[in-house]
Amino acid sequence: MVTETGQLKEDVPEPESKTPPADWFRFDLHHVDAGSDARQATLHTPHGAVETPAFMPVGTLGTVKGVDIARVRETGAQMVLANTYHLALRPGEETVAALGGLHKFMGWSGPILTDSGGFQVFSLADRAKITEQGVAFRSHIDGAAIELTPERSVAIQETLGSDIAMVFDHVVELPNSAEAVAEATWRSVRWAERCRKRASREDQALFAIVQGGLDLNLRRECAQALVQMDFRGYAIGGLSVGESAEEMYRTLDSTVPELPSNRPRYLMGVGRPEDLIEAMGRGIDMFDCVMPTRNGRNALAFTDEGPLRLRNAAHELEKRPLDERCPCPACQHSRGYLRHLFQAKEMLGPILTSIHNLTYYQRLMAEGREAIVADSYTAYREEKLRGWGQH
Amino acid sequence: MVTETGQLKEDVPEPESKTPPADWFRFDLHHVDAGSDARQATLHTPHGAVETPAFMPVGTLGTVKGVDIARVRETGAQMVLANTYHLALRPGEETVAALGGLHKFMGWSGPILTDSGGFQVFSLADRAKITEQGVAFRSHIDGAAIELTPERSVAIQETLGSDIAMVFDHVVELPNSAEAVAEATWRSVRWAERCRKRASREDQALFAIVQGGLDLNLRRECAQALVQMDFRGYAIGGLSVGESAEEMYRTLDSTVPELPSNRPRYLMGVGRPEDLIEAMGRGIDMFDCVMPTRNGRNALAFTDEGPLRLRNAAHELEKRPLDERCPCPACQHSRGYLRHLFQAKEMLGPILTSIHNLTYYQRLMAEGREAIVADSYTAYREEKLRGWGQH
Repeated sequence: MVTETGQLKEDVPEPESKTPPADWFRFDLHHVDAGSDARQATLHTPHGAVETPAFMPVGTLGTVKGVDIARVRETGAQMVLANTYHLALRPGEETVAALGGLHKFMGWSGPILTDSGGFQVFSLADRAKITEQGVAFRSHIDGAAIELTPERSVAIQETLGSDIAMVFDHVVELPNSAEAVAEATWRSVRWAERCRKRASREDQALFAIVQGGLDLNLRRECAQALVQMDFRGYAIGGLSVGESAEEMYRTLDSTVPELPSNRPRYLMGVGRPEDLIEAMGRGIDMFDCVMPTRNGRNALAFTDEGPLRLRNAAHELEKRPLDERCPCPACQHSRGYLRHLFQAKEMLGPILTSIHNLTYYQRLMAEGREAIVADSYTAYREEKLRGWGQH
Repeated sequence: MVTETGQLKEDVPEPESKTPPADWFRFDLHHVDAGSDARQATLHTPHGAVETPAFMPVGTLGTVKGVDIARVRETGAQMVLANTYHLALRPGEETVAALGGLHKFMGWSGPILTDSGGFQVFSLADRAKITEQGVAFRSHIDGAAIELTPERSVAIQETLGSDIAMVFDHVVELPNSAEAVAEATWRSVRWAERCRKRASREDQALFAIVQGGLDLNLRRECAQALVQMDFRGYAIGGLSVGESAEEMYRTLDSTVPELPSNRPRYLMGVGRPEDLIEAMGRGIDMFDCVMPTRNGRNALAFTDEGPLRLRNAAHELEKRPLDERCPCPACQHSRGYLRHLFQAKEMLGPILTSIHNLTYYQRLMAEGREAIVADSYTAYREEKLRGWGQH
């Protein structure tokens, strides 16, 4: 077609109400590894592109704990996650909007994904009462009575202004009865449909969440139902909640094939470096997890030789950095210095180790992307697992 | 004279044992302000030069609390301070030396000044017993029995490897009896002489500390006695311990004229922005203080309009940064965001506000240096005091 200004444009659909321009959230699949299901793609958003597989640092309250946002960028992060439940409680989504929206608030000009609050409501809130309408609960901060529904979750996420919003889902603890898991799963499917109807921002993509516990048939049925509704992306939720790694990988093996290959796949809340490696190999594109920062605050540093406990006396006189190859601020110091910081309860210990771990996770992703493009993901996976003592 | 290699060298004294080469610690006085005693100089050290007046951030345990060392550099800091007492207790000066010395340990390639431990022994240690020999006390961490003497303090500072070491002094609380103040002051003079005799590193300068409480005659006599011993620099100690600002300024007015103009003058542990401005105007060249970081951790931010308490509800919806002109990471965010961080008890609040305050203190110095060179220090002082509501 020819535009008003006379330029030739091809394959540009007419904009529809409530449908964002196709290019805003384009997911360009570049390559699938020859020896695994690992894949490399680019996810385009209104705030820029993300090379996948990608790891999103968790900025629960609009801050990646202990790390200023320029340092977060320096770790190699392309996209961050923020928590709807936490931000709605403090400072409130209207305050975030009044301060210019979530990107401006955090000082992050790249893409942001917000979760829906579902997981937090069921894990943090006091006395959550679930009905088909939604969840009534008490704030874990001040006990205030709050109701969260699919519509309200989407409304909060639209007010926050993230690039990707998640559907509000009903998460149950595991292990649980088959009946309880199925009931929560089908309720999550109905809630996903309500979220889809409520979503109105053209610059925000809505992702569905596959639930179903460890019931592989239920997972498949849930995935099929959600795929029929045609979401911009699909998450796998309700994992990394106490099940074994093998159970998690089996669940991925059953669920991922049900998801369309031309949409991003996001494994929520996972996980350890070995979980990321295994899930990438199964075709997962996006991850988030608090482990790099939470473990960093607790003196645990990730390395290619496995995790190091920095409080260990063995590090007292160790001149080597955590990783000779790592360019992060922590690796400008000796392990002995980092140990000293934790022994002396200095804030800089958690700060530096969090930055190192975030950098480590980003390098795991970057090297994974390179391996996929080179059709050598299996060798990459084995090298990493061997280094960590997993093989 | 003509050197062995035939080059003409003038005015170069023969090197004496225990005397560092003159150029390592050269103090080049460039300009004295036309309307005040404020002066601009360059202090050369084995780890580089410092433009004075200069403010040294306090890195008590080998870390400026909450701020990674590259960020410390970005604030404009040229030199940092570390505490001998704290480092000797944790991790121990031998551990610091084994990890490459204090510069390598902290990751700071610029000049470092270490205090002597005198102030900390008398303010932190348990059951300090003072004799002419030194001080026996209990560690405030584990109760271990420790003795610190002038010789031991110098030995620790030499092991740490700082560029400037301070003499070990006897600090008394104020108010105190005239007899107690005089006794401690003259003991400090005798201890200064012992430190001078013990000092053996040619790449480390030893500064004396003028004591004398608020007794102006005693301060003058102490200064004269120390100047006769010919130190590389002179500090004024025992201030900012509860006396009024006027008493502090009066003490400076009496003491500074006793100090040689060709040596750096260092006011220890001071202070508020207005104290720095007043002391610079009285000819002080160097400062250190925990206020920027300690107050930053406590949500107090320094600005040209005076300090802001960031927990104040008035900042909730405030889109402006702390200071529009400030390039620091905190000023990339709104005041509302900073308030949110403190309300939510997020580490990033203390981190960002500490960085901002350090940046503010450095700018106060940098602008002060410019004003001195332009002979406009009095106008600079008045502008600052007016902004803070002090005039």
